[in-house]
Amino acid sequence: MSRYAEFLQTTEDIFRLSALAGHLGWDQEVLMPQKGGQARGDMMSWLAKERHQKLTNEHYGNLISELEQSSSLTKDEQANVREMRIAHDKAKALPVEFVAKYAQLRSNALRSWQEARATSNFSSFLPHLRELVEMTKEKIAFYPPPQTPYDALLDEFEYGMKVSDYDPLFAGLKQRIVPLLHSIIEAKKNQENFHLPDDMIFSIESQTNFCKQVSKRMGFDFEAGRMDQSTHPFSSGLWKGDTRFTTRFDEADPFSCLYAVMHETGHALYEQGLPHEFAYCPRGQAVSLGVHESQSRFWENQIGRTPSFWKIVLPALKKEFPNFPDWDAKMLNRIANDVEPGFIRVEADEVTYNLHIMIRYEIEKRIFNENLPLEDIPQVWNSMMKEWFDLDVGEDSNGCLQDIHWSMGAFGYFPTYTLGNLYASQLLEAMADDIGDVTTIIESGEWTPILEWLKEKIHVHGSLYTPSELIEYATGRPPTAEPFINYLEEKYSNLYELKI
Amino acid sequence: MSRYAEFLQTTEDIFRLSALAGHLGWDQEVLMPQKGGQARGDMMSWLAKERHQKLTNEHYGNLISELEQSSSLTKDEQANVREMRIAHDKAKALPVEFVAKYAQLRSNALRSWQEARATSNFSSFLPHLRELVEMTKEKIAFYPPPQTPYDALLDEFEYGMKVSDYDPLFAGLKQRIVPLLHSIIEAKKNQENFHLPDDMIFSIESQTNFCKQVSKRMGFDFEAGRMDQSTHPFSSGLWKGDTRFTTRFDEADPFSCLYAVMHETGHALYEQGLPHEFAYCPRGQAVSLGVHESQSRFWENQIGRTPSFWKIVLPALKKEFPNFPDWDAKMLNRIANDVEPGFIRVEADEVTYNLHIMIRYEIEKRIFNENLPLEDIPQVWNSMMKEWFDLDVGEDSNGCLQDIHWSMGAFGYFPTYTLGNLYASQLLEAMADDIGDVTTIIESGEWTPILEWLKEKIHVHGSLYTPSELIEYATGRPPTAEPFINYLEEKYSNLYELKI
Repeated sequence: MSRYAEFLQTTEDIFRLSALAGHLGWDQEVLMPQKGGQARGDMMSWLAKERHQKLTNEHYGNLISELEQSSSLTKDEQANVREMRIAHDKAKALPVEFVAKYAQLRSNALRSWQEARATSNFSSFLPHLRELVEMTKEKIAFYPPPQTPYDALLDEFEYGMKVSDYDPLFAGLKQRIVPLLHSIIEAKKNQENFHLPDDMIFSIESQTNFCKQVSKRMGFDFEAGRMDQSTHPFSSGLWKGDTRFTTRFDEADPFSCLYAVMHETGHALYEQGLPHEFAYCPRGQAVSLGVHESQSRFWENQIGRTPSFWKIVLPALKKEFPNFPDWDAKMLNRIANDVEPGFIRVEADEVTYNLHIMIRYEIEKRIFNENLPLEDIPQVWNSMMKEWFDLDVGEDSNGCLQDIHWSMGAFGYFPTYTLGNLYASQLLEAMADDIGDVTTIIESGEWTPILEWLKEKIHVHGSLYTPSELIEYATGRPPTAEPFINYLEEKYSNLYELKI
Repeated sequence: MSRYAEFLQTTEDIFRLSALAGHLGWDQEVLMPQKGGQARGDMMSWLAKERHQKLTNEHYGNLISELEQSSSLTKDEQANVREMRIAHDKAKALPVEFVAKYAQLRSNALRSWQEARATSNFSSFLPHLRELVEMTKEKIAFYPPPQTPYDALLDEFEYGMKVSDYDPLFAGLKQRIVPLLHSIIEAKKNQENFHLPDDMIFSIESQTNFCKQVSKRMGFDFEAGRMDQSTHPFSSGLWKGDTRFTTRFDEADPFSCLYAVMHETGHALYEQGLPHEFAYCPRGQAVSLGVHESQSRFWENQIGRTPSFWKIVLPALKKEFPNFPDWDAKMLNRIANDVEPGFIRVEADEVTYNLHIMIRYEIEKRIFNENLPLEDIPQVWNSMMKEWFDLDVGEDSNGCLQDIHWSMGAFGYFPTYTLGNLYASQLLEAMADDIGDVTTIIESGEWTPILEWLKEKIHVHGSLYTPSELIEYATGRPPTAEPFINYLEEKYSNLYELKI
């Protein structure tokens, strides 16, 4: 067996163990019986342990080193070696006992957070958060010294991204978004406020039919995947021919399910479009959280929150909900894009969304780079909410306790959501250059060219390139915030008839 | 780490891999999207390969040998060593290439059988069957020499059982069942024929509600398990707190679902009752197919096909199906126990069921011990159907092509179904000795004592004893056919007012 074949075999074993964990994770959220939780957790940590052992194995590390010196690898093979080097080094940096203790701590913190959020009691979560932050600082110390401590965390979720990248990005965004938001708020004062009828019940069956039609039209192959229900929508590319996503239902608001389905279908289309001939190795995997989020946000917002989209799906909507008011596409689109500062990130519109991310980024940065006392988090959070949104956070459950991420130790994750939003707009611009006006395509109802472009430019490359290389390959220039800001300003100026 | 701890760790790894395969198997039957089949098969064979490697590992074999010499093991530990010795030797006997080739052949034969059954074309399946039989004979040759070749196959499915055990057992059964069957057929000629109303639709929702109530009453814990739908009902004890079974629905016949649910709940209760403190090792596993089948058949027949059962569930039946004819428990029980020679094993009543098994046993025995030419199978099959049931098998799909087992290479499996029937009656007798008249308990509607007895006598022992030791432990005597024959004669004499 060649050295590369030997390397590939272990690599595939590692990814198979991850795929099995992914499958169990899907099952756990969708249909696992309540009392199965303990054994499931036990099985998940066994899979993680087996994976860790294979990934950190010394012989495997030597194979990677040898292959890095080889001049005979193809570009695909080089990508696999490059990505597994990163994964091997990261895994190897952490002692096994540390990993186990950290996992246990996260599991406890998750339960504590669930209680704390339910009772809006930050101080009950604080001791767990403190332990998590302390261990996360220990973790940073195990890694090679980063430019700033927080960089080591940012890098875990989007390879290569640092505070020195995010700081100017967010500053630029803020500079343009805050005035836009204030203009919208002003304009809305003199405009009628549209909203969904508040006395209708939208049956789960009809919502399912409607949303599945939309998902199909986007190009999701239901013979190679499923749509199910779970508390928090998510998507999961298990393996070739089996990609699953979930949604939730609100019987008073069909838009909640619709946009969850479009978002998750966006993720799922990426998974269905990956090059499955490279199964179980990086070359066949999605490249990053940021790029993944660009796919979900693109379909949800750039496609789904447009008047053209509503023109096309209006007949299906009226068929499934015959009592729906006789509104036109423009009206529905206005409702679907209502801008309104609110407390909750996952309910935020496109204009305010990234400000929510910035609050989290700022606080995380101060925690790890400036040792912000953790008991000050609510006050820092709330003052930013006041400054940007003019909102008073009464309950921490509406503030710093709303997200699950910190309780899972996922510090550094949030900014990838903003990257997704930026990439999505940059992709829209480049797509229009390549295949013509996207509005026209949406209105034709035949969306295949859109998916084909995304496949060709993003999906089929798996992890061949790094995230920023891939965006540059797809759009002809490095990642930049300009297209997103232009998109927001143009879209919302039209929608609210602003003069800016 | 002690030698035993080391042995246990690998043993647990082996069982974890089986449990993962069990989980994927459940998913495959219940909800996997169509195009996921190829990757699923690939993942299943990877799990099988990993398991085989761990099970046949030389160091693991040495550990077993050492522990067999140890005098300091507990009874539980001894049981684990004993069972893993059997599994290790069986796995090690077969060369890896043979196992792979055999698996591939089975996979092809399965597809060929599916087509052959659909078109009732035995000769198209014959070449695959021939290859399977040839390879199965090779397999027998890898094992230590058995008394007769077929014994090696019987032993795979019920440890220790041989032709010299089954031959007298089946002869005794046949001798008493055939006359009973003929008496029933005679008696029925002068009796009214009762059947379900043939113009009613029984909604899936109502059948689900009704059957779940029955399953709950039997003691199934729905917080530690699920009921779903699949083409062929089955049950699967995934791991602690997560036992799943499936059923099928026939909108014209709610009995089909009911008895599938009772059967599968019987299996599932065994899984829920296993000693989960011994997870992932034999001590915590069901001991054999025969004992497993005794649990399903006990609940399906000894409990479910009685007038007492129908008395208790009648109100629920009438509530779910308000248009159901106003029949009493006696009538429903008569319908549920209708004896009628038929072509299909899985639809057979209790009287004819074991004759179906004997046909398969006879043919398998002749194939492996007397080199029966395989092209003669249909003729041998059909002549036995004629002799015992007075039925002419027109289509092989109603005859020797009806079961999946041979296409999967599962020669020697069928007799375990009969063992299950025999054990179930022997358990009923012993249970009555211990806790009093079972009819009275069923009629009380409070069935906990029944389940508790089964737990105490069967479930909690896992694989501590061999199957026949366990039956002897539970009932005070070795396995015997007498209780079953007595049960049949008494039950059906009453039902059909026979004079025998």
